[in-house]
Amino acid sequence: MLRYRFLLELSRAPRTSDGPDLRWLNAVGPSRTDTADRDDFRIDCRPAPEPWAQDAVIYQVFPDRFARSSGGPAPSEAPAGLPEWAVGCSWDEPVRPHGDLTPRQVYGGTLDGVRERLDHLAELGASVLYLTPFFPARSNHRYDATTFDVVDPLLGGDEALVRLVEAAHARGIAVIGDLTINHTGDGHDWFRTALADPTSTENGFYYFSEDGTEYASWLGVPSLPKLDWSSPDLRRRFVEGPDSVVAHWLLPPFDLDGWRIDVANMTGRHGHDDHNREVAALIRSTMDAVRPGSMLLAESTGDATEDLSGHAWDGGMTYSNLTRPLWQWLSRGTSTTGINFFGTPVQGVPRIDGRDLVATHTALSSGFSWRVRSQNMTALNTHDTARASSVMLDGGPAVGLALAFCLPGLPTLFAGDEFGLPGINGEDARTPLPWDTARGSSRGARELVRSLAALRAGTPALRHGSVRWLVATADVVVLVREHAEESILLLAARADYRDVRVAPDLVPGSWADARPITLELPGGSVVETAGGPVFSGSGPGVQVWRLPGVHPRHDRVEFVRGRGQTGGMAATVRQHHA
Amino acid sequence: MLRYRFLLELSRAPRTSDGPDLRWLNAVGPSRTDTADRDDFRIDCRPAPEPWAQDAVIYQVFPDRFARSSGGPAPSEAPAGLPEWAVGCSWDEPVRPHGDLTPRQVYGGTLDGVRERLDHLAELGASVLYLTPFFPARSNHRYDATTFDVVDPLLGGDEALVRLVEAAHARGIAVIGDLTINHTGDGHDWFRTALADPTSTENGFYYFSEDGTEYASWLGVPSLPKLDWSSPDLRRRFVEGPDSVVAHWLLPPFDLDGWRIDVANMTGRHGHDDHNREVAALIRSTMDAVRPGSMLLAESTGDATEDLSGHAWDGGMTYSNLTRPLWQWLSRGTSTTGINFFGTPVQGVPRIDGRDLVATHTALSSGFSWRVRSQNMTALNTHDTARASSVMLDGGPAVGLALAFCLPGLPTLFAGDEFGLPGINGEDARTPLPWDTARGSSRGARELVRSLAALRAGTPALRHGSVRWLVATADVVVLVREHAEESILLLAARADYRDVRVAPDLVPGSWADARPITLELPGGSVVETAGGPVFSGSGPGVQVWRLPGVHPRHDRVEFVRGRGQTGGMAATVRQHHA
Repeated sequence: MLRYRFLLELSRAPRTSDGPDLRWLNAVGPSRTDTADRDDFRIDCRPAPEPWAQDAVIYQVFPDRFARSSGGPAPSEAPAGLPEWAVGCSWDEPVRPHGDLTPRQVYGGTLDGVRERLDHLAELGASVLYLTPFFPARSNHRYDATTFDVVDPLLGGDEALVRLVEAAHARGIAVIGDLTINHTGDGHDWFRTALADPTSTENGFYYFSEDGTEYASWLGVPSLPKLDWSSPDLRRRFVEGPDSVVAHWLLPPFDLDGWRIDVANMTGRHGHDDHNREVAALIRSTMDAVRPGSMLLAESTGDATEDLSGHAWDGGMTYSNLTRPLWQWLSRGTSTTGINFFGTPVQGVPRIDGRDLVATHTALSSGFSWRVRSQNMTALNTHDTARASSVMLDGGPAVGLALAFCLPGLPTLFAGDEFGLPGINGEDARTPLPWDTARGSSRGARELVRSLAALRAGTPALRHGSVRWLVATADVVVLVREHAEESILLLAARADYRDVRVAPDLVPGSWADARPITLELPGGSVVETAGGPVFSGSGPGVQVWRLPGVHPRHDRVEFVRGRGQTGGMAATVRQHHA
Repeated sequence: MLRYRFLLELSRAPRTSDGPDLRWLNAVGPSRTDTADRDDFRIDCRPAPEPWAQDAVIYQVFPDRFARSSGGPAPSEAPAGLPEWAVGCSWDEPVRPHGDLTPRQVYGGTLDGVRERLDHLAELGASVLYLTPFFPARSNHRYDATTFDVVDPLLGGDEALVRLVEAAHARGIAVIGDLTINHTGDGHDWFRTALADPTSTENGFYYFSEDGTEYASWLGVPSLPKLDWSSPDLRRRFVEGPDSVVAHWLLPPFDLDGWRIDVANMTGRHGHDDHNREVAALIRSTMDAVRPGSMLLAESTGDATEDLSGHAWDGGMTYSNLTRPLWQWLSRGTSTTGINFFGTPVQGVPRIDGRDLVATHTALSSGFSWRVRSQNMTALNTHDTARASSVMLDGGPAVGLALAFCLPGLPTLFAGDEFGLPGINGEDARTPLPWDTARGSSRGARELVRSLAALRAGTPALRHGSVRWLVATADVVVLVREHAEESILLLAARADYRDVRVAPDLVPGSWADARPITLELPGGSVVETAGGPVFSGSGPGVQVWRLPGVHPRHDRVEFVRGRGQTGGMAATVRQHHA
C-alpha cells in the first residue's frame, strides 16, 4: 500500500500578497490547508483480483433458512433426527429474534435445498453464492464450529457440498464459504482436547488462565473460546499450507472459490497480542498457492479502513461507509425504535440528509484503496443486521439497492431481500424463505434485482468506472460513474423532487446524447436547459441515464517534481490548458 | 494505545420524526454523522514521562556554531588542525546556504564552549539542552557518523562531554544527544568493514546489491548508507542492552538524559521491510533498563501521528501540526520566495488565516494521544528549517513563540532564536551565535523567551491544562488552557484588532477575576460587557490573562453503556443537569 496526494499550484503568478495559491488533493477532496497522511489516496501493489471476482454479484445464504431439499419433510413439519440442542421448527414457524430459543431453532434447510434453487440465483443475476458456515456446531448459525473437518450432516454432509459446488460451477456461479478463525465452539474437538489435557498441543490454541479454569472468549461468550494465534501448531493446522483447513475446502473434491472470514478484525488480537496481519497474510499465501485467484473477504464490522490495507484481504463485509449511512438517509425515523442499529446504544436509526449521506460515505470510504473499495461488499443488510425493509421508509430498499448496485463494490444480497422480507435484528432477519407465499407479491422486487444485476453486468462503467458526486440535497443525490466507453448517471431520491439542476460542465459529454434506462421503480423526467439538465420526479425513486464515455482530457499535465518519503509522498502537477 | 469516542444522545425524547438526536464526539470535535476510527481520541497505556520531561523547555545547540571555548582561537581566526574535508571559517564568515562548501564549513564551536555558556541557557529558562550529533563525521552536521564510540575530538572529545553534562546537571539542566539510526556515514567503521569484506558481520548491517557494488542510502545520498535492521548483530551492537551504543552514552561517566533520534520515521523501512516499531521498542526497552525515565524523541518530518502511537517514542520533532501552520498564518506572503517551505515544491510560504490555523492545528494534532502531543517539540524552527525571522512578518516570531510556549508540547528553541537570527533554509539557519554583536540589539527577544519560560514554569495550566479554542478570525485566535488551580487565556494577533468578543459562557469563571500578564510584546485592552470580554489591541501581539481554575462540574454524568471492540469503542454518556 502506497499513499500519495497531489499538490496543485493554481497559478504560477500568485494572485495576491498571500503567496502561492495551493490545493492539496487527497482522498477526501481538495484542501487549501495542510492535510493528514491518513486522508491520502492509497494504492495497492498486490495483483488485481480475477475478473469474476471484480464483477461479482454476491448472494448470501444462511443454509438452515434457505430451502429444504425436495426429499425433505413437508413445510408444515419440523425436521426430525436433530441433535439435543436443536428445536425443530416447521418452515412457517416465526423466528425468535431474542432469547434462549433463538440459536436453537432449526428449520431444516440443506445444501441440496440450495442446489435445487440455483436457477433462482441465476435468474436474479447472482454470480457468487456465499454460504454462512456449514460446519457442525451447536447452533443454527454454526459460528461455534465443533469441527472444521466435515460438512454438518444436518446440511447433507460433504457429498451435498460437492454436489452444490459442481452444480453452481456448471451455471457459472462461484461458491465461497465462511470460516470463523477468531474462535471455535466450546464443543470443538480442539477445545475439548485442550480442556481435557493441559499439556496437549491444542491447549496452546486458546487463552487459558494460569490455573486452567478460565479462558478468553468472543465478547465474553463462554461457548466461543478465542484462538491464540501465537501457536505455530494452530497456524499449521488451520491456515498454513495445503493440509490446512483453509486449503482443504478449496481443493477437490470441494473446490470452493474462496472464503469470507468471520470477525476478521478481532482475529489474533488479545491484550497486547496482535497477530492479525500475520494470520491474514498466511491465509492469503495458502490460498494463492492452492487456488490462485480465490476470493478472500474479511468481516470487519467497525471502520475497516486500517485492516483492509491491501496486504491480504481483497475486500470486506463492512457497514460503516455505505450500509450505515444508507440506513440513516432512508430511515423511517422515529418508527425505527426497536431496530438494532448495528449495536449503537440508541433507540432507532437517526435520519440524516443527502448531504450527510455523501459526506459520510466519502469520508469513510477514503481510507480504502480503490481496489479494496471495489471489492467491499455493498449490502443493504446481511444475516447479522436488521433488514432494509424494516429500517427504511416504503420504497427505500429499492432506492438503496440501486445505489448498492451502482456504487463501487460488490453488490451483496442476503437471501430474502428479493422478497422484501422484514427483520428487526440479525436473528429476526433469518426468516425461512417463503417460496410458496411470497413469489407472487414480490415480483417487482425480484425484477428490480434482476434488472440491476443485468445493468451492472452489461455496463463496464458500473464495474470499473470512477465515481463522482454531482448533487447532494436533503432528499436527492446524483452521482456519475465514468468510463472510457460510456458513463452512467444515477439520481436517487427519498422523496418527490422538482427542478434538481446539474451544472452542464459536471456532466460527461453532452446531455443531448443521454439515454434513459428504465428500472422497476419510480422514475422521473428531465428538461434540458442551457444551465444543464433539470430533473423532477417522484420518490423514493431513481433516474438512470447512459451518457457518452469520458474521453481522455487533452490538457497537458506536466509532472514537475515528486518527493518520496516513508509515510507520505508529495507531488506537484501543473496543468497547461492546450 | 486505545482509541475511543463518545456518543452523546442530546435528548431522550426525539425532537422530530428524524429519530434520536446524536453527536459523535472524537478528537476532531462533535459530528452529527458517523466518523472514522482514525479521528478517535487515543489514550496511551505506557507510564507517564518524569516531571522534568513533562515540563521541559528545550534549547537546541548545533555544536560547531554555538560557541568556541575560552581557550580557542580569536573570532577573526579560523580553527586550526582540521581534517581534510573541513574548511575552517572565522566566527563571522557568512554561512553558505547551498553548495559544496555548505557541509564543510567548520567554525570551531566546542562542547566546552557550550559549557561556558550554560548560564545563558539558565537565564533563558531552558531546562533541557539538546545537542545535535557530537560523533566524529565528515561534515559539520555530523549526521554522517564515522563511529559512535567517541565524541569528536574537534568538539573536545569524551572528557568535554563529561564536563558539559556535569555542569549542566549542576544547574538542573538535562542533556540529550542526537542519534542517527537510519544510516551511518560512508566513512563509518562498520561500513568500511562491510565494503572490505562481503563475508563480515558488518556487511549484513547495510543493504548491498547482490554483486556488492551498490547500496541503499538516505534519499539516494551515497555518503549516507542505510542500515538494515533485520540484522540481529546490528541490533545488539547499536540499540539492544547495556553494551549498546544507545546505552553507552546514558551510563556514567556520560550520563546523557535521553536521545533525539534522527529520521526516526524512515528507520528500518526499506522496500517491503518494516522494522521500525521493533527497533523503536528495543531502544525504549534499553533506555528503560539503563536509565529509567530518560527522554526519547523521534524526528518525524511528515505527519507523525501514526509512528508516534505511544509504544516507544515519548514525542517527536515534528512540524506538520504546529510549525507549518504557524509559518503560514504568520507568513510574510510573497516576500517569502526563496524560503525552503519544508521541501514543499512551491515558491514561498502561502498565507492562511486564523480559522485555517486552528482547523489545521486541530486536525493534525488529533492523531496524537494527549500524552504524545504534550511531549512533541513545539518549535518555530530548528537546525533543519528556515528561521522564523525570515519566514514571518515583523513581530511574528514573538507571537509564534507565545503560542509555542502556551500550547501543549515542549517549547523548543534553536540557539539563536533569542537573537532573532535569520535563515532561508536549515543550513543558512546554522549561523554562529553573534555573542558580541547581537546581545544589545536583541534584549527584547531574550526577555520574551525568559518571561515565557518563567510563565510556563510557574503555571500548571500551561504544562498540564486542557486546551480549547475560543475564537478564530483571519487575524486573531484565542485559546484557553484550563486547570483546576488556575486557567490561562491567550489571545494572539497577527495584525491590529478591535472588538474581538468572547462569549461569556466560553470563559472559565468570571471575567471580573481575570488578571493580565505582561510580556515583552505588544498587548491590548479588554472591555468587560454583558456579552463577554471584548478585546482590542495592536498586532502582531498577544494578550495573556490569568483566570480562575475550572472547578469540576457538578452535573451528574452517568455512563450508560460501553461497547468494546478491537479497533474502536463506543460509549454513551447521558448528562443529567443537577
